[in-house]
Amino acid sequence: MDWVVILAGGSGTRFWPLSSPRHPKQLLPLAGPTPSAVAAVAAVEPLVTRRRILMVTGPDLAEPLRQATGLPADQVLVEPVAASTAPALAWGTTTALARDPSATILSMHADWHLGDPDGFRRTADAALFAARQHDALITVGITPTRTETGYGYIVPGEPVDGAVRQVTRFREKPDRATAEALIASGALWNSGLFAWTASRFLAEVRQHTPELAGSLVFLAEGDVSRFFESVTPVSVDIGLLERSNRVLTIAGDFGWDDVGAWDALARLKPADRDGNVLQGPVYTHESGGCIAWSDGTPIVLSGVRDLIVVHANGRVLVLDRSRGPDLKRTLDVLPPEVRDLP
Amino acid sequence: MDWVVILAGGSGTRFWPLSSPRHPKQLLPLAGPTPSAVAAVAAVEPLVTRRRILMVTGPDLAEPLRQATGLPADQVLVEPVAASTAPALAWGTTTALARDPSATILSMHADWHLGDPDGFRRTADAALFAARQHDALITVGITPTRTETGYGYIVPGEPVDGAVRQVTRFREKPDRATAEALIASGALWNSGLFAWTASRFLAEVRQHTPELAGSLVFLAEGDVSRFFESVTPVSVDIGLLERSNRVLTIAGDFGWDDVGAWDALARLKPADRDGNVLQGPVYTHESGGCIAWSDGTPIVLSGVRDLIVVHANGRVLVLDRSRGPDLKRTLDVLPPEVRDLP
Repeated sequence: MDWVVILAGGSGTRFWPLSSPRHPKQLLPLAGPTPSAVAAVAAVEPLVTRRRILMVTGPDLAEPLRQATGLPADQVLVEPVAASTAPALAWGTTTALARDPSATILSMHADWHLGDPDGFRRTADAALFAARQHDALITVGITPTRTETGYGYIVPGEPVDGAVRQVTRFREKPDRATAEALIASGALWNSGLFAWTASRFLAEVRQHTPELAGSLVFLAEGDVSRFFESVTPVSVDIGLLERSNRVLTIAGDFGWDDVGAWDALARLKPADRDGNVLQGPVYTHESGGCIAWSDGTPIVLSGVRDLIVVHANGRVLVLDRSRGPDLKRTLDVLPPEVRDLP
Repeated sequence: MDWVVILAGGSGTRFWPLSSPRHPKQLLPLAGPTPSAVAAVAAVEPLVTRRRILMVTGPDLAEPLRQATGLPADQVLVEPVAASTAPALAWGTTTALARDPSATILSMHADWHLGDPDGFRRTADAALFAARQHDALITVGITPTRTETGYGYIVPGEPVDGAVRQVTRFREKPDRATAEALIASGALWNSGLFAWTASRFLAEVRQHTPELAGSLVFLAEGDVSRFFESVTPVSVDIGLLERSNRVLTIAGDFGWDDVGAWDALARLKPADRDGNVLQGPVYTHESGGCIAWSDGTPIVLSGVRDLIVVHANGRVLVLDRSRGPDLKRTLDVLPPEVRDLP
């Protein structure tokens, strides 16, 4: 049967000072009133029923995620240490397999915005079907809507069966010219939405992913701590998909957004007539192109352009908008007592 | 004997959201640890002794000013309504005259920064001497240090006696080209530092200032309320100095600054190597030319230039630096519950 593994880790610095390790973006009402982790469960529930939704997260977030999503404790898997996506998905996949020998897995992230949940489910359903049909690892490629240099790209190859195609190659974070050329040639964004049968995934990991292949036995024995202690952290893209020759892709177009950083809000929330995207008590005067968020303290912007301004958790951030994706570089130079939120 | 009248009214919006009607700039430690109202008293005390310092202010500020300066109640004159500078100085001058028939008055403002208090006292002393010597209204002209379009200018004329000169004319708030021409021709800033004998001031008011001449009788009768109810508000510059032919000027150069608005801090406080002037817990990263003030909440600036950023009294202000003097225009469009401070 179909299962969903939702990856819900993440240290939560991209939306500082609103997000924090204990209040990461997947638990914040960023794009709308519903936190994305809750929206993710709601989006897949019609597909697989609630009982076959697993979430993988860290110790700090397990309880907040259980409370927010209503998932029972045995469906929220708590990694003892963060080890990137390949070990997390190996654990999620193994857990599903132990409960259902015919498990097929849909893998997604808890911090996405899904603009078209119906379209998302249609694509997810097609990916799960293709994973079984072709006994392959399916990666869903998102039709690009802008020249994005922060994502990985999938270059699709020959059609295999209907919408399912070979993968010619992956390309991580290209420069702008390369991204433009990739998009012109029909490349897709590598979203992190995958589908595979549990058995095929584990077979491919054993063959291609030495970083964790030798540790899978600990998962089979139920010794999760030892598994995470012994693996080498690696992403499923680098550790498996770029190495396996059983990877296929299908294209999806369902208003996907990874809500990467503050500047993403401009894609997800309506702007005022001056191009400002505002949340909370923010007052603008002859200002444009700003993204501003207040958790209650009034913010007044006057005569300024293209700024990100945030008041949250007892901190004020004023950032040039172009630096949204680079916020970490600023946080790295802050004293810990300022960076670390109360 | 010499007396000082310190004008300490003012509604306190120029340093919003730090200043407020109850906490105006003259009571805030803007340029240094000492509020300017306290510094003003300290600056003139060696000149006239404490007992001959009068302060004129409004009902809200009387008690805070008494506490901050230590002046006794009978030296803090409380205007029932604000009516600009001519009525306030008429009251201050009349009060001094009632206590001292030979009173000579030095008039100044409580919100100035005096970079060189010794130089200030030398100039003040010379102004008081000239007021008696020439039985004239003396206006001290400040040697300009920049092309300022927000001030009034004094165009000095022929020398009268040493440093004392005639006044050819006054010029209010010139445009930039006019200001440059004025400065090139030797014009001085009209600071608001004046000196006169009480008797000459009142004689000139009777002759030239119909806005309050007929009301002076109420001051003589001790009916301050009726005086303020019956006068027409007018500044001493427009209502008297520009009309009288008994006005002389002397030049002064003592680090005078009217601390007009947030951008003034850049003249009064040292900048860091990126040209940022910061007060409180403010952290900058690749940012320059900013003026930032925090009353405790950490502010982080990243990749921004020439902004004024303030967190105070539960408000955040982000203003283009060039708009410092125009802040009122922004405050005017704010809802009262945001503009009015707690």
